[in-house]
Amino acid sequence: MNLRFLLFCFIFCCANVAFAQDSTAEDTDAFYIKKIYTAALSEGKCYEWLTDMTTNIGGRLAGSPQAAAAVDWTKQMLDTLGLDKVYLQPCMVPHWDRGDKEIVRVATSVAGSMDLRALALGNSVGTGDAGVSGEVIEVQSLDEVDELGEKVRGKIVFYNRPMDGSNFRTFTAYGGAGDQRVFGPSKAAEYGAKAVLVRSLTTRLDDYPHTGTLIYKNENQKIPACAVSTNDAEKLSRLIKAGKTTVYLRTTSQMLSDKPSANVIGEIRGSEFPDEIILVGGHLDSWDVGRGAHDDGAGCVHAMDVLQLMKRLNYKPKRTIRCVLFMNEENGLAGAKEYWKQSDANNEYHLAALESDSGGFTPRGFQTDGHPDTYTENHRSLTKWLPLLEPYGLGLTTGGSGADISGLKEQKGLLIGFRPDSQRYFDYHHTEIDNIDAVNKRELELGAASILSLVYLIDKYGL
Amino acid sequence: MNLRFLLFCFIFCCANVAFAQDSTAEDTDAFYIKKIYTAALSEGKCYEWLTDMTTNIGGRLAGSPQAAAAVDWTKQMLDTLGLDKVYLQPCMVPHWDRGDKEIVRVATSVAGSMDLRALALGNSVGTGDAGVSGEVIEVQSLDEVDELGEKVRGKIVFYNRPMDGSNFRTFTAYGGAGDQRVFGPSKAAEYGAKAVLVRSLTTRLDDYPHTGTLIYKNENQKIPACAVSTNDAEKLSRLIKAGKTTVYLRTTSQMLSDKPSANVIGEIRGSEFPDEIILVGGHLDSWDVGRGAHDDGAGCVHAMDVLQLMKRLNYKPKRTIRCVLFMNEENGLAGAKEYWKQSDANNEYHLAALESDSGGFTPRGFQTDGHPDTYTENHRSLTKWLPLLEPYGLGLTTGGSGADISGLKEQKGLLIGFRPDSQRYFDYHHTEIDNIDAVNKRELELGAASILSLVYLIDKYGL
Repeated sequence: MNLRFLLFCFIFCCANVAFAQDSTAEDTDAFYIKKIYTAALSEGKCYEWLTDMTTNIGGRLAGSPQAAAAVDWTKQMLDTLGLDKVYLQPCMVPHWDRGDKEIVRVATSVAGSMDLRALALGNSVGTGDAGVSGEVIEVQSLDEVDELGEKVRGKIVFYNRPMDGSNFRTFTAYGGAGDQRVFGPSKAAEYGAKAVLVRSLTTRLDDYPHTGTLIYKNENQKIPACAVSTNDAEKLSRLIKAGKTTVYLRTTSQMLSDKPSANVIGEIRGSEFPDEIILVGGHLDSWDVGRGAHDDGAGCVHAMDVLQLMKRLNYKPKRTIRCVLFMNEENGLAGAKEYWKQSDANNEYHLAALESDSGGFTPRGFQTDGHPDTYTENHRSLTKWLPLLEPYGLGLTTGGSGADISGLKEQKGLLIGFRPDSQRYFDYHHTEIDNIDAVNKRELELGAASILSLVYLIDKYGL
Repeated sequence: MNLRFLLFCFIFCCANVAFAQDSTAEDTDAFYIKKIYTAALSEGKCYEWLTDMTTNIGGRLAGSPQAAAAVDWTKQMLDTLGLDKVYLQPCMVPHWDRGDKEIVRVATSVAGSMDLRALALGNSVGTGDAGVSGEVIEVQSLDEVDELGEKVRGKIVFYNRPMDGSNFRTFTAYGGAGDQRVFGPSKAAEYGAKAVLVRSLTTRLDDYPHTGTLIYKNENQKIPACAVSTNDAEKLSRLIKAGKTTVYLRTTSQMLSDKPSANVIGEIRGSEFPDEIILVGGHLDSWDVGRGAHDDGAGCVHAMDVLQLMKRLNYKPKRTIRCVLFMNEENGLAGAKEYWKQSDANNEYHLAALESDSGGFTPRGFQTDGHPDTYTENHRSLTKWLPLLEPYGLGLTTGGSGADISGLKEQKGLLIGFRPDSQRYFDYHHTEIDNIDAVNKRELELGAASILSLVYLIDKYGL
């Protein structure tokens, strides 16, 4: 792309003046939204904050010293913005600890012994110091375990159904394979399996195991479970096909006692309707591997930058704009549950609550959810603003929002999930490479601009 | 993002079945387009090809041995696809050579001497072996040079107006600063300047100079010109503000004699309307620095994959589908001009011509252009397919297409530019880091899927 294209760009510049006419009339929303984008791309703080958070603090698993440091640091940052109120909302969080580096050692009849790249799943019990050994049996689904029944007793069950990379929608592909990680361990335990290995949830073939939480359905049937990288899942599968394969597994992960932690909250009080809250949020905790840059450092700095940019633009909201950085989304939602409880106890009303928890990529739009009594009308309010949002590549879909705000549905406001491009998300999700160098500055900043633009419209017009 | 979100994904899976109903009826276009996406994401060859091309061949400047190797290799790849016709279309191309590593050495009154990271602009003359020295004078525009007039005589003019990073539209920002690179050297030469330095065209502050072509307006007034990295442009500007600053510049770039080269063409002949051509193309040449992964290896492998996927899907087009890999887009358009000439001489009719030359990022849609006699109606044909394209994040805009196909306008078909997300494009454009590791496999594959989907609709229904 070069010469003629550059000449075309000159023309495109001029053509854009035509589009820009709307946005040059100072009293229009188009003008204000353009101003928001300009400010976010030139005076946004989200990238600087995310760099600080990921570089100086690191992974922020609930209950860890890093999570505590993140609470302090975030509050300090919000304190610099001249908000009306910045405070911590205490909560007790589960404290899971990964323990020693996991060992997943394969001994085969044909290829000697080798270690697989693995990570214990969040909330998993450990094997104990001595580890466990057993023959590995590969399955593609929980149903297959039901069919095998007693045949898995004393074995290590290896769930190896891949995320469907041929699906355009990566989150759908994630949903289509995630039952193995979340419920696979309990299903295998039902029939007396010793442990579980799960293929990592990513469409790529690479060497990074992806952790993530599991749910034990039965308190008395907890068995250890690890994710293995997709490359190693392929290797293991080949070995199993070649002959009887035994794995030695050693993990010392354990659930410790609950710890005190907190949600971090900052707000600008509304000038006309202070009791109508518009929440923007993300979750401050992350997994312990990597630095939680996309998941969900990005969402946190998006929410913080919404307030920063409002102050910088000297925008005085009619409604209360509240930034909430939730604690413990990854393995318990303890912070969110505390927030919902307090909010209901105080008879609060969230006109809208928006969570950014899908990464810091180029914005594609918003997804909404809500209470049946009000949802249709609330969502329709947003659709009338589409002509203002579409020039920035933003669309609207229905059917979901975010985990941390889902409990606010009974307040009958609108729940909104920010949706950036998702094609790269599962390359990094829950791995050691979810770091700042996986985040593009402009793409991150555009997230803050997109969210603030929608918040501006909701604040100005209501729903 | 974790537990509740995963549960939501399960639901989203089910919700998607509702959307997918359209695309499960085998006789619908929605079904076929879904099939195209599935094939591109699971059986596409574009990423493998781009890896080969960039790793084994490298930068492919017109006239270079690498460009010749790329012609051979591309023809070989097309030969494997079982097409009806694969051939080279010979053309003569300019052969510019960068020569030795550029030296741009600053001697200041306050900070000693230091070398700036610089690249000669494409088509620039060299300084000669001895180099040139002169006081640097910083300007923000060509107009400013006109105002300074004789004051620039004997000096080195430094154009330092940045690309406007606060603009959401990166191509508009590029167009808004690019006159300095393309026409700045001639403007400075008019008033007797010795040489020109230009701030690199990127919104980032980094250490990579961005090359690109210049145009000399007057054959007798050619002066050497280099791009410097944005970080070094900032440094140089500070030095100039601090006091009189002298630069020593040495470049040995030169324009050699024209060389024979070729466009590479492969086609599947239409079964019903073989004389209606649908062209898909990119340009095979790139700059000599970096490997031309996004610019425009991506466009080439997109076009090649359209044919590969058609064959794999056993799709028999009604119209002739022709893949054209143009030579010398970057500094002369010689291949494109030859193609236009031959096409007109053979009374060909391009019903549609589509170029991919904006990188291998997540697709956002298509931009169109055409002859006034037919354009409005042709573009309208595309808009009726929007409901089929929008589920894949594709939109339509007017006002442009691609440099290599622009000369086909008189044939009165529709000209189409493929438009992926552009936020990261100018991080890599014309630099040493435009390599395969800057390309995401899924994002690239989705480009081929998007283009093939549109080609499928045009082929099936005409315009």
